[in-house]
This record gives sequence, structure tokens and C-alpha cells, in this order.
Amino acid sequence: MPKISERGNIMPESPIRKLVPYAEAAKKRGVKVYHLNIGQPDIPTPPKALEAIKNIDTKVIEYSHSAGNESYRKKIATYYNRLGVALTFNEVLVTTGGSEAIQIAFNATLNPGDEVIMPEPFYTNYNSFALTNGVIIKPITSKIENDFALPAIEEFEKLITPKTKGIIIVNPNNPTGSIYSADELDKIRQLVIKYDLYLYADEVYREFAYDGNKSISVLELEGIEENAIVFDSTSKRYSACGIRVGALISKNKEVISTALKYAQARLSPPGLGQIVGEAAEDTDVQYFKEVYDEYIERRNLVISELNKIEGVYAPMPKGAFYTIIQLPVKDTDRFCQWLLEEFDYEKQTVMLAPASGFYSTPGLGKNEARIAYVLKKEDLKKAVKCLEEALKVYKD
Amino acid sequence: MPKISERGNIMPESPIRKLVPYAEAAKKRGVKVYHLNIGQPDIPTPPKALEAIKNIDTKVIEYSHSAGNESYRKKIATYYNRLGVALTFNEVLVTTGGSEAIQIAFNATLNPGDEVIMPEPFYTNYNSFALTNGVIIKPITSKIENDFALPAIEEFEKLITPKTKGIIIVNPNNPTGSIYSADELDKIRQLVIKYDLYLYADEVYREFAYDGNKSISVLELEGIEENAIVFDSTSKRYSACGIRVGALISKNKEVISTALKYAQARLSPPGLGQIVGEAAEDTDVQYFKEVYDEYIERRNLVISELNKIEGVYAPMPKGAFYTIIQLPVKDTDRFCQWLLEEFDYEKQTVMLAPASGFYSTPGLGKNEARIAYVLKKEDLKKAVKCLEEALKVYKD
Repeated sequence: MPKISERGNIMPESPIRKLVPYAEAAKKRGVKVYHLNIGQPDIPTPPKALEAIKNIDTKVIEYSHSAGNESYRKKIATYYNRLGVALTFNEVLVTTGGSEAIQIAFNATLNPGDEVIMPEPFYTNYNSFALTNGVIIKPITSKIENDFALPAIEEFEKLITPKTKGIIIVNPNNPTGSIYSADELDKIRQLVIKYDLYLYADEVYREFAYDGNKSISVLELEGIEENAIVFDSTSKRYSACGIRVGALISKNKEVISTALKYAQARLSPPGLGQIVGEAAEDTDVQYFKEVYDEYIERRNLVISELNKIEGVYAPMPKGAFYTIIQLPVKDTDRFCQWLLEEFDYEKQTVMLAPASGFYSTPGLGKNEARIAYVLKKEDLKKAVKCLEEALKVYKD
Repeated sequence: MPKISERGNIMPESPIRKLVPYAEAAKKRGVKVYHLNIGQPDIPTPPKALEAIKNIDTKVIEYSHSAGNESYRKKIATYYNRLGVALTFNEVLVTTGGSEAIQIAFNATLNPGDEVIMPEPFYTNYNSFALTNGVIIKPITSKIENDFALPAIEEFEKLITPKTKGIIIVNPNNPTGSIYSADELDKIRQLVIKYDLYLYADEVYREFAYDGNKSISVLELEGIEENAIVFDSTSKRYSACGIRVGALISKNKEVISTALKYAQARLSPPGLGQIVGEAAEDTDVQYFKEVYDEYIERRNLVISELNKIEGVYAPMPKGAFYTIIQLPVKDTDRFCQWLLEEFDYEKQTVMLAPASGFYSTPGLGKNEARIAYVLKKEDLKKAVKCLEEALKVYKD
């Protein structure tokens, strides 16, 4: 029997998804599982976007342009123009979710063995994409006791080697809910200029910035127009995770033309998803306001409820819809599995994502878990209640 | 300004798509372009499949399972069962087009530097995916004078080194239209067993086998159940290229579980496309019969018309809807560009894919081009007429 590849062997299972079989087993036993493990909001996709797909009048579903439909790329550029970013459709490449934007950018700009610096904990699939593409992520640890603020810029600089080609930030941050200030971004900007690095910015949670915090795009930063590469997505903005449509955005023409060669190889991004995505760009402000208000309430509820539990600490997230919480257990990998495998409270339990998978440094995050507050308030309350009851009986 | 990666620099432009800007310019000049360059059939997507998408009653377009919706995976397994292949849904991983199936399989089973043997000319994007994943394709040349028959198995064996991990076949073949016989496949099967190789088979044109030729799946071959990996796609079977839904199929549990880790990293395959793909699996036999009859007529017409042109040789394809033709020019890269840039016949011209990009051996295919007979007969006739007129005036 031929062997699996070495890279395949060391490829991690997704910490967000690896517990799914246990959740399925729990459901089969009649236990209701509250999913706080995955950023799958229950917010409706904008109805107009759904209408668009119901009204397609094509007879053949054809390939689109490899860079995406021009009409859609223009809508995306217009969206950025509204944010104050000068952008044309030629600077936008439509991808199969934000995930593909990351992979194409890695391939187009980084050689195997090249290093990128990234604050941890970070969105876990960066580990997987780095491994797939031979890229080395040098983590710089942000800490729960500082509410996961950006580490000092000197700490970044210490990690720079001749192999360093870029910095990756996720802003607003998944999994921590941090938002980087104008001042913090300016320090990164200066470092990017000093070492002529790429600055990759995952800005898919841009609309989810609370308490007067502002999501600043790296495309707004002066003097790094050729360095900045943005990963964007419809998934969270329009609650349309399943359409798998995102974008790679850069003013660097060489980056876009190289990325296009990778895009050509896979022919085109999803056609039906692009129709939904394009229609979603016309979503009215009221939709976002309602969604925003809902998330603020959910956040306030879940953080306050969590912090009432003895031994639990949940920092107040500034953006996105995640937070990393500290739990009074030794190993959240084991605890989260136990929640699904052995525990229930009145035939209900809760699914969390163990945080260890969000750290690149081995051993970190063992007593932490990520929660996504993507359920309606009644369910969030019940989910937290399950956690509270579980912690009363759990033995490490 | 930071540099593009070395791998990005050597990534080829798609020979199928690199002439697109010239075609667009021709259209802007008012010239009608007949597209024989790309396998984008004008055959309608099955109406029932389109209905399915118009009737979705979801409010949120959610992520699907990373391996695809179970209901869809079961339909795919059932489709294989009808072909006589014992298969369960656990052996099917839904991918973002056949393209992603190739990439995931390469990652899961091959290390950078590993070699795979593949008859050339081959579907050009294998070059791109191999380059992306650090895989080395060792080409074995099939020749137009033999109607691109499979090279002798001894030629394959000569290429085997300690780095050889697999053989890739595309059957029915894109771009040559070859179909491999039971006898040829048996020889490959024996070689695969002798050296314990993977056998990757791209079988996306399975339904397009003419003149009594039979498409045999590698999943039907005895004794290589753990070696065989199939790449499949809805694109051609259901004329639904734009939905970007395909599948990676293997009875090797380790391959599927490793592939799933790569699938988890990108979260899920396109959700709307899966709805179309699943509904398409219920397409009735009559649809295929009509499509089949149409392609037979198109093939017969285009091959006979092409062979009437002095200096042109078009072998009769046994399957798929492509053929590689020989042209009386020195460099089809230049000729195909000239067709779009400088030529028109009664305000019409034709777009072909230069064949050099389908060969891995440098210098081969310079006087060949791939044509896809995916247009209706009147248009095919006009397209060939354009080619004929062009050859009368073209100067190398």
C-alpha cells in the first residue's frame, strides 16, 4: 500500500472541526448541542441576495473569468471606495472563500522556507495553509492577561531574519476579538517599510467593530501600497459562509498578475456564489445595523454570563464575534471532548473549540477555548449554563 | 517593493486562457470569436438541477460538511454503484471542482520532489498544480501519428526511479480524445502493483466515449483498491462548469482521512453548487442520450471538415470533446494570437488553444493546437471555415 505524504501526516486536524464526530454522536444520543465552536452565524443571509439566486435565468452555468465576474469585482471596488479606499476592479481577484485568497497569496509571494510573523493565537487554518505551502509562521504571543493586545513592535522586530518576507494580521481578530488601533497599525506600517515586507491583512470581520473601535484597513495606510495584501470574504459580512466567495485585494500589480496565474489553474471561483455575493453588495444599511445591534447584545450577554462562572475569565472582545476564554481545567482538548462524549445537563451540552490549535507555540492555550457568539441570546444563555454545570462536575 | 515568489515567477499562464485579452480586444473591434479554446460546452445544464437552486428555502447559506453534504456524497456513491463500482459515501470527498481534487490528492500523497509519470500532451493545469505542490511530472510522450495511443508500458517502466510515487492518467483524455482499452489499463494496473504506486485517474469525461469504446474506471481494476484515486467533476457531465463542484474518490481510507484534513482547512466546498450537483444526479438517461448524439455529430463534422484543409491533420477522437490537431505553421502560439489580433474573415475569427502548453517536454506541440468541439454545428462549421481562410493568408 503506497504511503501518505509526510506533509499529509503532519497536517493538523482542524481544532474547530475535529470534535464534529463527537457532536454527531451526542446528537444521536438525543443530546442537544449548542455550537459555540464555529463561526457559523444564524443571522439570515440578506434576502435580496437569496432572491438573486432564485431569479437566475441562465440555461448553462458557465465558468466565470478566472479573476471573477467583472461586474462583481466592480461592486467590491465600489464597496471599498465607500470606505474611503481608492480601488479599481483590476486590484480585486475573486477567490473561493477567503481561504483560497490566503493560499494564492502565499504561493504568489512566498517561497517554501520563507517566514512570516503573526500574532498568536491566530485563526487556526493559517497553520494548515502555511504547512501546505511550505511557509513558516513565526508566532508572537499575545496574552489573555492583556486582553490579547498587539505585542510591542520591538517583539516583532526581534523575530525578523533574512528569511522574513511578511507580517500577517487578522483585524478585527479571530479568535481573540481584538482590534488594532491607528497607532498600532502605524507601528506595523513603519516596520513593513523598514524591512520591505508584505503586510497580509485578514479583514473579513471589518463590519464587526464595537464600542467606537474602528476597523482600519491596511489599504488605507500610506506608503505601503505595494506591500499590502488584503484577504476578504462574504462569509461573515453577509452571513453567507456556504457560498465560498472571497477576494484577494492588492494595489501591487505584480501580486495580482501572479495571483491570476494561480487562479487560472483552477479555472474560476464559484459561479452561483458570485451571483449571491454581487447581489449582497447592494444590502442596505439597515441590515447591518440590525446585525450589529444583535451582536453587541450577544457579546454583552455571553461575556457577562461567562465571567460569573467561578474560575472562568472571558475578556471583552472589541470586534468580530469570538473570544478566547480561560477555563479552570488543565486541558481543554480533553474537556471539550468530554463535554460532548460524557456530559449533558438536561439533555443539552455545549461545543467549544479548544484553543491549543490556535497557537503555533506548542503548549500554549491548554486552559483556553474559543467561543463564537453566533447563536441567539436564549441559546447563548443555555450554552453558558451547560458550561457552568459541566465545570461543577468535571474532574481533570 | 517586496518580490514575487520564485514559484510564482515560473508559474505558467494558462495556455487555454492566456489569449483571452486578445479575444476580448477582437470582440471590441466587432469581430465575432468562435471559442474552440476552452471546454465550456453550450449544452444546457439539466433543467431539474437549475430548478433545485431556484427552489432553495434556506434563510442562511451555511458551511457544509468539509467533505460535502452527506446526501450528495451518497448520490455520487449511487452513481458509481450503477456503473458497477462498489463504493460508499465515506469514500467520496466533495471538492471545489476537479481542480481541487487534484491539488488535495497531490498534497495528501506526494512530498515535494516526488515524481509522477503522466502521458503527454496532458491537461495543462496538471503542470500548474504540480508546480504549486512541488511535484515533478515525468512526461511520456504520446504521438499524433499514433492517434495519441498510450505509449508502451515498457516506456513507463523506464521512467521509474526511487522518487516515483504514482502514475496519472486522464481517461477519456483531455486534450487528445484517447480512451484507454481494458488491455492498456491492465498493463498499467500490473505496473502499479509491481512498484506499489498510486494511480491517479482523471475520469471527468467518462460519459463521452464514442464508437463502442468503453470508459473503464480505475476503481474497477482488481488488486489496486488501495492505490487508485479518482478525480471527478460535475463540470462536463452535467454541463455545469461554473458551479465548481467535483470529487476525490478512493477506497484507501488513509488517503481520504488525510485529504479530509486539507478539506477542513478550507472549510467546505461550494454550497449552492452542491445543491445543483446533487439534483443533477437525478438527470434522466434521455438527457445524456441527446447530449451524446449531439457530440457524435459535432465530432464527425469538425474532424471531417478539418481534414479537408490542406496541411491540417485531425485524428479522430474516441472520447471527451477535444482533439489535438496538426497545423501547417511553425509556432501555434504565434498563430493563435495572430488569429485574434490580426485576422478576421467576414468579421469572424476562431480561438484555439496552442498545444505547447499541454506538453511538459519543451519544444513539443509547436505545430499543434487543441480544439474543443463544444459549439453547435453551424458555429463549428464557421469556425473551421475561419481557420481555413486564415491558413491561406498566414505567413510564419
